Amino acid sequence: MSIRIGIYGYGNLGRGVEAAIRQSSDLSLVAVFTRRDPATVQLRTPGVPVYHADKAPSMKDDIDVMILCGGSATDLPTQTPDLARYFNVIDSFDTHARIPEHFASVDAAANASGHVAVISVGWDPGLFSLNRLYGGAILPEGEDYTFWGKGVSQGHSDAIRRVPGVADAKQYTIPVEAALEAVRAGKAPRLTTREKHVRECFVVAEEGADKAAIEAEIKAMPNYFADYDTTVHFITKEELQRDHAGIPHGGFVIRSGRTGFEKEHSHVIEYSLKLDSNPEFTSSVLVAYARAAYRLHREGGVGCKTVLDIPPAYLSPKSGDELRAQLL
Amino acid sequence: MSIRIGIYGYGNLGRGVEAAIRQSSDLSLVAVFTRRDPATVQLRTPGVPVYHADKAPSMKDDIDVMILCGGSATDLPTQTPDLARYFNVIDSFDTHARIPEHFASVDAAANASGHVAVISVGWDPGLFSLNRLYGGAILPEGEDYTFWGKGVSQGHSDAIRRVPGVADAKQYTIPVEAALEAVRAGKAPRLTTREKHVRECFVVAEEGADKAAIEAEIKAMPNYFADYDTTVHFITKEELQRDHAGIPHGGFVIRSGRTGFEKEHSHVIEYSLKLDSNPEFTSSVLVAYARAAYRLHREGGVGCKTVLDIPPAYLSPKSGDELRAQLL
Repeated sequence: MSIRIGIYGYGNLGRGVEAAIRQSSDLSLVAVFTRRDPATVQLRTPGVPVYHADKAPSMKDDIDVMILCGGSATDLPTQTPDLARYFNVIDSFDTHARIPEHFASVDAAANASGHVAVISVGWDPGLFSLNRLYGGAILPEGEDYTFWGKGVSQGHSDAIRRVPGVADAKQYTIPVEAALEAVRAGKAPRLTTREKHVRECFVVAEEGADKAAIEAEIKAMPNYFADYDTTVHFITKEELQRDHAGIPHGGFVIRSGRTGFEKEHSHVIEYSLKLDSNPEFTSSVLVAYARAAYRLHREGGVGCKTVLDIPPAYLSPKSGDELRAQLL
Repeated sequence: MSIRIGIYGYGNLGRGVEAAIRQSSDLSLVAVFTRRDPATVQLRTPGVPVYHADKAPSMKDDIDVMILCGGSATDLPTQTPDLARYFNVIDSFDTHARIPEHFASVDAAANASGHVAVISVGWDPGLFSLNRLYGGAILPEGEDYTFWGKGVSQGHSDAIRRVPGVADAKQYTIPVEAALEAVRAGKAPRLTTREKHVRECFVVAEEGADKAAIEAEIKAMPNYFADYDTTVHFITKEELQRDHAGIPHGGFVIRSGRTGFEKEHSHVIEYSLKLDSNPEFTSSVLVAYARAAYRLHREGGVGCKTVLDIPPAYLSPKSGDELRAQLL
């Protein structure tokens, strides 16, 4: 019998989860829940019903794991604890600074209902966090570096779109190659924000807009651009659609450390991702952790977990015997 | 109170464990056990006793985790199950094909005595296995690639030293850059043994030896060199000592996979190690897993585990709260 999955929220992430479930024969999609009018939502998977979000609790016995595909700003802080009353849940809550608070509220709900919740699943937080943990535990004397990109930052693209005179925009975060090389060489450099990443913006201006003023306003934007070397390119709407339609992303987690009685040996551990589709990859991570949540719950686990707590083998459909024989 | 560690076997790996323990304030080295005359073994850590291996069982109440630093060919198959009768144990058993058999014998011993054993800890098997597992679970439709090097292969160096006329030798395994690039580009190439790695040999010939005959014999050696493009350099004993004294190693695990309803998106996950000292890095992994074994045992865990079974957070001295706040 396959693990019965529900999807709660059907945007880019929800569609990615739908696609990822088709790649795993031990999982089946039971239903998609939306706050929109369900009649307006068209799935890609034949035969799977779309229900209004309000109906979710009534299906608590039909779904083994609910995968939450809402946003971190306003959706997940309430949705994850709410739904943990009825289901094992997975979310991709990614506001790093608010993780402890989110953990506490989800943990309380999951413990009260006897479910497993796994929060902050994805690649950062998620796979990058795992690599920061393994790297630091193995090389306790060393430095951690995280670089993001080359990829599209949704938040920065949105910030540009709010500038007067901007019709549309896409922003790429790009690691500085010289900084990456210094880290890889074990030089343990201290890097400023500006030295680590550059920002490249592709902007469609409204007709008659003052491009120089737009460029100046973008480059001066505090937090988003002021601390970076930022390049602004003005392009047409057609060019934006043709050349910048994708949502690629990726990045690097590097641990550089020393061992030996005199700290005479250097070691570099590097983990990197190069992703054609940020939401589809994140969805694939969510789906693997849904399998883990189901297993943990079946074994009597309860409460809130993160990727740091989950035994790796729980992500795989293979048995322990198979894993040891085939890939250890 | 710190976690009390014993070291069983004091070669390169044992010395690496001794050094690694000094980098972790929650661990303390209680004793080193050797099959040699203990009087001939000089530790680097003041005040730590060296005992004969036979004395180990009598210290079962003084040691929380015994780290086994013997070889996979003849030492660990008997030592790990034997010592699991008295201690929580960690080993670096690395004969991939015999892992299931080793697991079974260690699991029986550890279950009978109520201890935790973690086998095949290191980087391959070990960290590379973890990355093969995570990569395959997240991108189920894709290909796995493992490359080793650039680094010294002890087994291949030994094989060269057995050739008549060879006084000493060091062999480097080197990944083929073009193969790595094709894999990184998401091309999912099918690669032969020869296309993945080259082998470079630095050989000190005995005086008057027939160098052409030595080179021909090395290059024709089945399993070791015949399937590879192999280069042989003859150098002096002094050059070997000056330029090839280290034991560097490393490698790459790459997962290339596709997502999307039409498999339209490619993703590449790459994990790589660049190690100045293969034994010291392996030792650092062993020590982190010793911490995990102690915690698992304290929570009632028993039996044989591998890196695939261990929750990542167990490797770190930090609490769950600290990990979530600082590195998730």
